[in-house]
Formats: sequence, C-alpha cells, structure tokens
Amino acid sequence: MAATPEYESDPAFPLHHGGKIEVRPAVRVRDRAGLSLAYTPGVARVSAAVAHDPELAYRYTWKGGTVAIVTDGTAVLGLGDIGPLGALPVMEGKALLFKEFGGVDAVPICLDTKDPDEIVDTVVRIAPAFGGVNLEDISAPRCFEIEQRLDEMLNVPVFHDDQHGTAIVVLAALRGALRLTERDIADTRVVVSGAGAAGVAVANIMLDAGVGDVVVADSRGLLSSGRDDLAPVKRSLARETNRDGLCGSLADGLRGADVFVGVSGGRVPEETVASMADDPVVFALANPDPEVHPDVAARHAAVVATGRSDYPNQINNVLAFPGIFRGAMAARAKTITPAMKLAAADALAGLVEPELSAGYVIPSAFDDRVVPAVSRAVAAAVDG
Amino acid sequence: MAATPEYESDPAFPLHHGGKIEVRPAVRVRDRAGLSLAYTPGVARVSAAVAHDPELAYRYTWKGGTVAIVTDGTAVLGLGDIGPLGALPVMEGKALLFKEFGGVDAVPICLDTKDPDEIVDTVVRIAPAFGGVNLEDISAPRCFEIEQRLDEMLNVPVFHDDQHGTAIVVLAALRGALRLTERDIADTRVVVSGAGAAGVAVANIMLDAGVGDVVVADSRGLLSSGRDDLAPVKRSLARETNRDGLCGSLADGLRGADVFVGVSGGRVPEETVASMADDPVVFALANPDPEVHPDVAARHAAVVATGRSDYPNQINNVLAFPGIFRGAMAARAKTITPAMKLAAADALAGLVEPELSAGYVIPSAFDDRVVPAVSRAVAAAVDG
Repeated sequence: MAATPEYESDPAFPLHHGGKIEVRPAVRVRDRAGLSLAYTPGVARVSAAVAHDPELAYRYTWKGGTVAIVTDGTAVLGLGDIGPLGALPVMEGKALLFKEFGGVDAVPICLDTKDPDEIVDTVVRIAPAFGGVNLEDISAPRCFEIEQRLDEMLNVPVFHDDQHGTAIVVLAALRGALRLTERDIADTRVVVSGAGAAGVAVANIMLDAGVGDVVVADSRGLLSSGRDDLAPVKRSLARETNRDGLCGSLADGLRGADVFVGVSGGRVPEETVASMADDPVVFALANPDPEVHPDVAARHAAVVATGRSDYPNQINNVLAFPGIFRGAMAARAKTITPAMKLAAADALAGLVEPELSAGYVIPSAFDDRVVPAVSRAVAAAVDG
Repeated sequence: MAATPEYESDPAFPLHHGGKIEVRPAVRVRDRAGLSLAYTPGVARVSAAVAHDPELAYRYTWKGGTVAIVTDGTAVLGLGDIGPLGALPVMEGKALLFKEFGGVDAVPICLDTKDPDEIVDTVVRIAPAFGGVNLEDISAPRCFEIEQRLDEMLNVPVFHDDQHGTAIVVLAALRGALRLTERDIADTRVVVSGAGAAGVAVANIMLDAGVGDVVVADSRGLLSSGRDDLAPVKRSLARETNRDGLCGSLADGLRGADVFVGVSGGRVPEETVASMADDPVVFALANPDPEVHPDVAARHAAVVATGRSDYPNQINNVLAFPGIFRGAMAARAKTITPAMKLAAADALAGLVEPELSAGYVIPSAFDDRVVPAVSRAVAAAVDG
C-alpha cells in the first residue's frame, strides 16, 4: 500500500509495521521425516489420542499455555468505542506483553459485534483451542455480564483485565501505603472515583481485602442506597459500600478520607486533596492525565501513585495479568477466584516490603521477580 | 499433568509437547521507552489512526499477513468427526506449515459447533483481525455452503484447502502427465472417484481447465443426470459432467478413460486400471492407503501419483496453500477466483516442465521455488 508519511514521523508507527506479533513454529520441521511427524501421517495419531482423551490437549497442543485476548473495541484505552480493527494494535501489544513478561501465548480476537449475547456465543464457540480468556477494552456495564456468563460457561479462566488487573495492582500498592502511613485496613476509608470496569473491580477487591469503608463516585456523585438513578451493578455496589450513607459530590466523599483511587479521568482540585485525612494516600490513575497532578498531590499526600511511567509508583496492569494467567493455567484453574486475586496482590506487596518507601509501594514492571511471584501465589491459591 | 508413557514411544508425541506453534513478539520491547511505543501511550496513536482509516490496518497490524485456520473437526484427515479439540494438533501443524513454507502467520480456530449458520456467524464476527480464512477439515456437503457464504460475506480470501488445495496440485500434476502422454486436454476423459470436498473441487477445476470430459463417481456409482438420489451439489455436478451419460460403477467409468483421480479411499483393482486407455494416468491419492498400490498401477499407467511421500509425484497440498494465501493477501484479493487457482496450478506445472518425467510431474514440497512461483502467479491473476 502507499506510504503514509504523515504518520511515520511518530516513532510508534514504524515500530508497528506489519504488526507486533507473529505465529512461529515451536518445533523445527525441515525435512520429510519431521513433516511426517508434525503433520500427516504422524499428527493423526496425536489427534486421535486427544480426541479419545481431551485431557491430553494440555500435553500435546498449545491449549494449556494459550490465551484468547477478546475485545469488541468499545472501550479502547482513552479512545472509547473505536471498533474491533482500531483495537487490534492494542491487542497485539497485549499479546506481546503476555509473551515477553509471562511466557504466555496470546491471540488477539477482535469481534465485529457489540451484542453481549453474540459476544458470549462467539467466545464459547472458539474456546476449545484456548486455555484462558482475557477480556479487554469492553465497555461497562456490558463487561460485567459478559465476564460472568463466560466464566460460568467455560471451564478455563476468564479475566477482564481492565477490571481485575487494575484492582489487583491497586490493592498491592495500597498494602504498602497503609503500612507506611501506619493505618489498619479495617479503619481505612477509601474513595473510588469511577464506577466503570476498573472502579467496580477496585471497590470489590477493597471490600474483599477488608477495607473498613469504601465509597464510590460516578459522574453524578457518590453512590448510595438513596440514589434512584443507578443501573443494577451500581445499585448492588451502593448496597455494599458507603457504610455511612454519604451523599453529594466526589469532593464531599473525599473530605476526611484516607485514600483516593481515581480511575475516572475526572479532575480533583488541590483543595479537595487538602481536605482529606492527615497523610492521605492518592492514587490518581487516569492516563495520560491523572485526576490530580502527582506533584500537586505530593504537597499533601504521604503516598502518590499514578498510571504514568515517568513518576514513581506506576500502577501498571502488566504487573498482574501475565502472572495471573501463568499461575492459573499452570494450576489448571477453571476460574479466577477472589482468593487468587488477593494472593496476587499480596505477592506484589511482598516484593516491595523490604525496601518499602513513599516512592516504592509497587514493583517496577521490569522487575524479574514479579511474574514468578504472582504466578506462584495464584497457583497456590487455586482450590483443590 | 501425569506422564503418558503409553504414547511416548511414538516419536510423534514427544514432538508435540506443549504444542507446535507459539505467538512471539515481532518487535523487541525491553525497556520503558519501547513499552511506551508498543503499548500505552504510543499504541493509542496507532489505534486512533487505524480506526480513522481501516486501510492502515494492513500497514500497522498483523492483519494483512495473518490467516485464521477454521475447523469444526468434522472431517479430520482420515479420522472423521473427532471434534474441535482432536483437530487442534492438525491445525497447529497447518499453522506451522503456513509459516515455515509461506511466511504466513496462521491461528488455529477450532469451533465448538457443527451448525453451518453458527460457523458462518462466528467466523464473520472474528474476521476483523485476519487477512484470510483457511477452512480445514469441515465435512461435505456442509463445507460447500459454508465456504460460499463466507466468501460472499467477507472481503478477505476464503479458501477451503481440502477442496481447492488438492484440486490445484492435481491439475498441476495432470498438466505434466498429459504432456508426457501427448494428450490434448480437450480430448481427455478424467474419472474422479469421490464426490466429497476434494472430488467436487477436482472435478470443477478440471472443467475450468478445459478437460474434455469429467466423470465423477460417488460410493453408489457414476454421477449422471439420470440419478435421482443426488444432493444439490452432486446434482449440479452431474449436470456439468459425464457428457456421454455413462451409468454404472466406477469400473464402468474407468473403462477406456485417460485419467483416474482417486480421492475417495475406495479400492481400484488391477484389472480396472488395465481396462483404461493406453498409457493412462493414475493419481491414487487416498492416504495412507492409495486406491491402487502405486507399484501395481505402474504396471499399466504411464504416470502414477499418490499422496505418499515415499513414492514419486506426491500430491501434497503444501505445494499450494502457502503460496496461494501469500499471493492473494499480497495483492489484497477479496476472493480466490478460478483464474487464480488455474494460475497456481500452471505455476507449479511450469516448475517441473524443463525436467519433466514420469517420476517428476510435480515439484517437491521442499523445492524453494514453489512458494515464490505460486505466490507471484496468484497475485498476478488477481483482478484489477
């Protein structure tokens, strides 16, 4: 096709030429003898054995180490609903990270449908060749139903990374921040800004971890049982959170709060940060523009984390998903339980504990210890 | 999982440990700078550009060089309907061949449904990330309808290899055999044993190539307009073939015939071969047991070909599909036309022509000239 010079001055584009991943032979077949084992007639004996005993697929095919990265392109990074083809570069990037960080083979599956029933049907139909399903960049609230239904229908792990990857890394960082600020988790009030995929999952893992009170804000204000404008997922969340029935805006929720977790992209002014409890914890994770600039937050907060790689404490999902899938698939988990997610967070928190500081509450994505630690912890947390 | 010593004495099994293919990064991302181009934030700019101009997917993603290998596991090699998981080792082998021989990335998609509507819907929904669809080991007559509908619905090449790959290589070998036996294709009568996927496609390409008369036999005998037991595809084929209205068994059809093409797995006794025209051509392609043993056939035939690698003239689909897809995708073909199939066959025939002999009517699968020649010929035959 014609050159596209208008893009090529941006180094991201030349890097993407021809795509960022490839499918390669894992065995060498260079002659007739090899071909007759890897393909006909030899492969027929392997296929017959697998058909006879499906368990053998985990030994003699790539299934056990291979994940489908499934998207419908409705919530791609900060770009929103750009469709399945626009999502493909992100899915290829995810596949690259799966392999480079976790040794997991991953295949982008970009769906030309936004209908939850069709998405579920399609994933179930293509499931046989995959050992896990990573849902990616599917908009809320559709993502909750899709994940739940797939998890029930498939006997391999299903994991919506935008929800649980974020939640796990946030909890890991929170563990260190609470230790540094000498807080008991049961006495801590966490305010989450955002009630989409990440916000709901962050709130849920906080509850699972024993956080004293969690308050969630959507674009209209704090979720509480009194709100009559809530969709089912938010209504359910409102029942389980906001113990004191706080009403009003995000700023109202943050007054006196111990921890802010922003996954909304909204703005938090400096005076709102100043209104929090003493030595507050601020995780401003909107990317590339945090809800409050980390330098501003640091004037008031004891610990600051962002999604950015150019500031300390980067909350990066790559700390979680490669090890989660590696561990879950190694242990042949049929689902990813809350206990497995908590174990992953604790494993991450454990890695920084010996050198814990305000600028080091979470390991670097390039810390070689991360994937083995997460993978081991997740595998150990698999039931029976 | 537990070891499976009962299989491990067969060298095909150790070769398959963990699967035969893997997804690897095609670019190196070893530090934060690389990560910020291949993934967030850099990838967002590429995704936005692709969403804005879908053509850019052919430059900045793997789509243009990547094929989905789709099966429902209903007609796997000689094993029959062994299901999608049993088919996976074969699909991995196919993906390995795609890359090793054609430089094409290919992903096994093993479908947990046999319903043609569901197969079509599923493939259409997963199509965005793929530049082509190779249908594989889907039973007849379902395969005909599935291929036709997908070809109409998708704007990328769709190719059922069991049909057309076989047909192309058979035609290529036939070109050489006719030259050796000094036959004019318009005066040649070809009898095809088998009216499944391969048989129908072989008959069709013979008609497209100008073979004088084609007669097809199914398990009940010769297809003719007089038969009232034929399903639609066979009825249509009966109308276009068997010019002289021959009736009876395969043996009746072969009496005086110039060419036998067996893709049925049935048996052809020596006396039937002896009843053919002088210097007949015998392609006995059932695998691993040809319809007539090549040594027996050679007592009567001027040219013998089989599907076996331990005899001369191996009719092997790997001679066709890697170059077909490589050429079709390079030329951005939206479909694989009859002209492209004929061009592929002629390219293969051209490679052996200088050294044509009874034992060399088709190139070796390991002949490095094959894929470039097929690919170039196919690309050149793409309309507009």
